[in-house]
Amino acid sequence: MKFTRFMINSSVSKGIITEDTIREIKGDIFGSWEYTGTVISRNEVKFLAPIEPNQVIGIGANYVSKAEDLPQELPEIPVFFFKPASSVIGPEEEIVIPKGINQVKFESELAVVIGKEAKNVPEADVLDYVFGYTIGNDVTAPQFFHQDGHWTIGKSFDTFTPLGPVIETDLDPFNVTVNASLNNIEKQNSPTDLMIIPIRKMVSYLTNVMTLKPGDIILTGSPVGAELVGPEDIIECIIEGIGTLRNTFVSAKESAETH
Amino acid sequence: MKFTRFMINSSVSKGIITEDTIREIKGDIFGSWEYTGTVISRNEVKFLAPIEPNQVIGIGANYVSKAEDLPQELPEIPVFFFKPASSVIGPEEEIVIPKGINQVKFESELAVVIGKEAKNVPEADVLDYVFGYTIGNDVTAPQFFHQDGHWTIGKSFDTFTPLGPVIETDLDPFNVTVNASLNNIEKQNSPTDLMIIPIRKMVSYLTNVMTLKPGDIILTGSPVGAELVGPEDIIECIIEGIGTLRNTFVSAKESAETH
Repeated sequence: MKFTRFMINSSVSKGIITEDTIREIKGDIFGSWEYTGTVISRNEVKFLAPIEPNQVIGIGANYVSKAEDLPQELPEIPVFFFKPASSVIGPEEEIVIPKGINQVKFESELAVVIGKEAKNVPEADVLDYVFGYTIGNDVTAPQFFHQDGHWTIGKSFDTFTPLGPVIETDLDPFNVTVNASLNNIEKQNSPTDLMIIPIRKMVSYLTNVMTLKPGDIILTGSPVGAELVGPEDIIECIIEGIGTLRNTFVSAKESAETH
Repeated sequence: MKFTRFMINSSVSKGIITEDTIREIKGDIFGSWEYTGTVISRNEVKFLAPIEPNQVIGIGANYVSKAEDLPQELPEIPVFFFKPASSVIGPEEEIVIPKGINQVKFESELAVVIGKEAKNVPEADVLDYVFGYTIGNDVTAPQFFHQDGHWTIGKSFDTFTPLGPVIETDLDPFNVTVNASLNNIEKQNSPTDLMIIPIRKMVSYLTNVMTLKPGDIILTGSPVGAELVGPEDIIECIIEGIGTLRNTFVSAKESAETH
């Protein structure tokens, strides 16, 4: 099923996407929910990020370019980082390049949506705690990376985490390809089996450190091919089965939010 | 006023601390709240972390040992990091040393509680967005720092962010001393004017990156003197005007939570 959040008549709703319509739902998507009976045409609504995450966790440098490059031994301590929930935007919203710089990086990623509280979960059981999958664009301003390796600021600007277009609950995460097209030119195209730390190991490791909660999002890393882009560039992050997450970059001074 | 959260008869409540009693309140401490009329003796309750944070942001290496060491020029990009909200515990709860290591570091810190949504806030206006102050212990396992400088895992274990005992709304943050006593021996004792990046500059910088929300906690850095400790050590983080945040370290195998 494809879960969506959307705006209609200035109010926010949730629903399940069918062919051309949205069947509105109410309740907790991780707990108990029901159909309201309202059916809406897809072109009547503005789609939002399909979830307001509890928190967003990313993993760094997690893809090789070809299977032969996969390491024999995995790193002992993976590079994880947090992105603030305040950085999340939805499909078609503008990604604002911060003042003082001209370019930022796009990074198309498969995003895991945690559905149940998860602590000390063995690798074999990880998928039992996954609600579904969406697409994340881990927008990054490497100019704001600290020289000692801290990525926090460079990953945390408002608008730096587009999510969407939907959460797909029926995806096989081991049998999809993560794509990105910049101004209609393909830049990223890798199957998820080119991940260095695969999903089960990544989530299991995290649950041995911290208790994951429903609504936590884990960005599973970006394939080779991410690059710096500037104002007016259009990025489409694409995973077949989930859809296309499209956003346009603007400079801070052109943003409607600037004051 | 001193805001508290506490457990009584297996349910969680909020209140204002007076001399020996707690006056229960209901509502949103950042919005509208009122007294319920119930007054409870302090020794009838188990105190909890005074807030369930929206998110926790820390700053690294932010104190000098004496005023003469304060740098003329501030770093261009401060070292900020996130700690997951799942790492928060309250006063008197056990800090669990993770499996595989024997010691972790305590770090006593003044914690700023954001009360209003804050974006692009000038330094002069920062305190208008602060609801109050509590004490944070930024427990850290440097053994889990990544060699390339990423601190995430070493800061993120469950129980690694004790907060409390209360949120004091009437504190002058520029006129307090941050203390820590380990097994009754003083280890940290620095006035907040030994911060390299002071509170107004720190919060203003963050709001130029991200939109801060009510319930965000900013740990403002730890004075010199933090050190590695082990099971059975008792740490008291003390700021006069807020109180004492006391916790005991235990090893993972002794923890009731282990299974």
